[in-house]
Amino acid sequence: MTLSLPAEFGLIGRYFAPLAGPEGLGLQDDAALFTPPAGRELVITKDAMVAGVHFIGDEPADLIARKLLRSNLSDLAAMGATPLHYLLALAVSRGTDEAWFAAFAKGLAQDQAHFNITLLGGDTVSTTGPLCVSATLIGHVTPGHALRRTGACVGDGLYVTGTIGDAALGLRALRGDIIDADGYLVSRYRLPQPRLGLALHGIAHAAMDISDGLLQDLGHLCRASALGARIDAALVPVSIPGQIETCLTGGDDYELLLAVPPARHVDLQKACAGLRITKIGEFVAGERITVCDIEGAPMTFSRAGWSHF
Amino acid sequence: MTLSLPAEFGLIGRYFAPLAGPEGLGLQDDAALFTPPAGRELVITKDAMVAGVHFIGDEPADLIARKLLRSNLSDLAAMGATPLHYLLALAVSRGTDEAWFAAFAKGLAQDQAHFNITLLGGDTVSTTGPLCVSATLIGHVTPGHALRRTGACVGDGLYVTGTIGDAALGLRALRGDIIDADGYLVSRYRLPQPRLGLALHGIAHAAMDISDGLLQDLGHLCRASALGARIDAALVPVSIPGQIETCLTGGDDYELLLAVPPARHVDLQKACAGLRITKIGEFVAGERITVCDIEGAPMTFSRAGWSHF
Repeated sequence: MTLSLPAEFGLIGRYFAPLAGPEGLGLQDDAALFTPPAGRELVITKDAMVAGVHFIGDEPADLIARKLLRSNLSDLAAMGATPLHYLLALAVSRGTDEAWFAAFAKGLAQDQAHFNITLLGGDTVSTTGPLCVSATLIGHVTPGHALRRTGACVGDGLYVTGTIGDAALGLRALRGDIIDADGYLVSRYRLPQPRLGLALHGIAHAAMDISDGLLQDLGHLCRASALGARIDAALVPVSIPGQIETCLTGGDDYELLLAVPPARHVDLQKACAGLRITKIGEFVAGERITVCDIEGAPMTFSRAGWSHF
Repeated sequence: MTLSLPAEFGLIGRYFAPLAGPEGLGLQDDAALFTPPAGRELVITKDAMVAGVHFIGDEPADLIARKLLRSNLSDLAAMGATPLHYLLALAVSRGTDEAWFAAFAKGLAQDQAHFNITLLGGDTVSTTGPLCVSATLIGHVTPGHALRRTGACVGDGLYVTGTIGDAALGLRALRGDIIDADGYLVSRYRLPQPRLGLALHGIAHAAMDISDGLLQDLGHLCRASALGARIDAALVPVSIPGQIETCLTGGDDYELLLAVPPARHVDLQKACAGLRITKIGEFVAGERITVCDIEGAPMTFSRAGWSHF
């Protein structure tokens, strides 16, 4: 008896096995097998994305793959880690054609070369619902050097990398609400730039990545560090003026939020050479987050960020 | 301004944070941070499950959680690894009530205590489709001692642990096709028993877990080892006679398939003391898998196992 191999194993062999490093065992075993780098701590994160929730429904497959990797890589960046390997789980509708898998794998190949990571393994299953994908990213750090959300101090400057709100504006552009003539904002929504490779140990007291909206994520860091923060809205680096609520509460920035003491301001600039970095406020005693307008008056918003439920 | 925390963070804090070990950093950071056990290889696997595909739609949440962990633990068992940690990704519909999360976490708590593992982190997101969950399991082995699918030799005995086809019969019982008076078959479908803790290094030439049907999975092992196999149908340990096709091609066994040379038969029995272990055939030259009936005549089946696509 010679029985045909189910289609998913053909797809795995053709498109995903070439992405596996030696640790992935050709994606032919029950699990991956790897020797952790000696004397390093491992950093591991797992984020999921759902069509229609995390990206518009008809997004090209290669961009879905890259956004999935990059949203997870951004978590490693927030911990100061160097990426190493990843695993995938794909729940895909039965009607999905092979071209979709080819494009998804092409996106993975492009970004795994760019970020120097290899595929360890995963699972491909069918669903009757929207595409649902998740990735597990593994990185490493010098022991004790991981950046955490705890540790911010009163008086630390509140810094952000890059510009804030571009992705939320890009989503509005995709929906036709605003004009994005050169496609920059849409590209920021579609393809995050994880801020990897910054040597921030000893400079930043605390760090996190901004994925669900600056205000909401700042709330997490403040709770973890047991303090409050004040933001000067006029200082927030935005690509379009007059959209401050969208920019402070919109998701998908994948920029870093940093707590840096005044004495390390110059070191921070040096560590982030070539990357825009902006002090937008400071950490304060208490547990409140205040956003001040140009006159110093507190501003209010209807929400702080993205909520799934 | 004091803004309320989105519901998912409340759920994570109440139900999932208590499951995290110190490496999970209270599920309050961007990633987990852990020191791999010194001098060990890590074994890592990631499997997903979708409601209506991997389990019937209204399965109790605690059993979904436990089946998810156990299907992944079975992959670690197949590699001879000792489990250590896990991560989760849950895509859940917005209407899901808190009791579902409480029950899911209760199932996790029960099994993580049983298998001595802790939660490292993960992601909880919304979906408009069916429940879609995945887990990443991390374990460890003595370097060089992992069991692989490669390495089976012509003449090796083909062994299985436990009984084969119970879960497929249990699914048929849930659908009313067969009678399962004491609920044993349904329990086998709902709650796999990963065969962890067997010291098979130096005894088994090759191993894998049976998750998509014995015949199909045996095909994977044969391809990896570049040989064929012969099964004597009458030797396959089944719970109900006369259902051989269901038992050989049905999914969700989570038993182990082993290639063991005749000289190590006694050692295998010793290593598996307390667990039923059965020689059902042997590995042969070529690339064909033959199932023989009681007269020695080859049997044919319409499919080899489960296919997603």
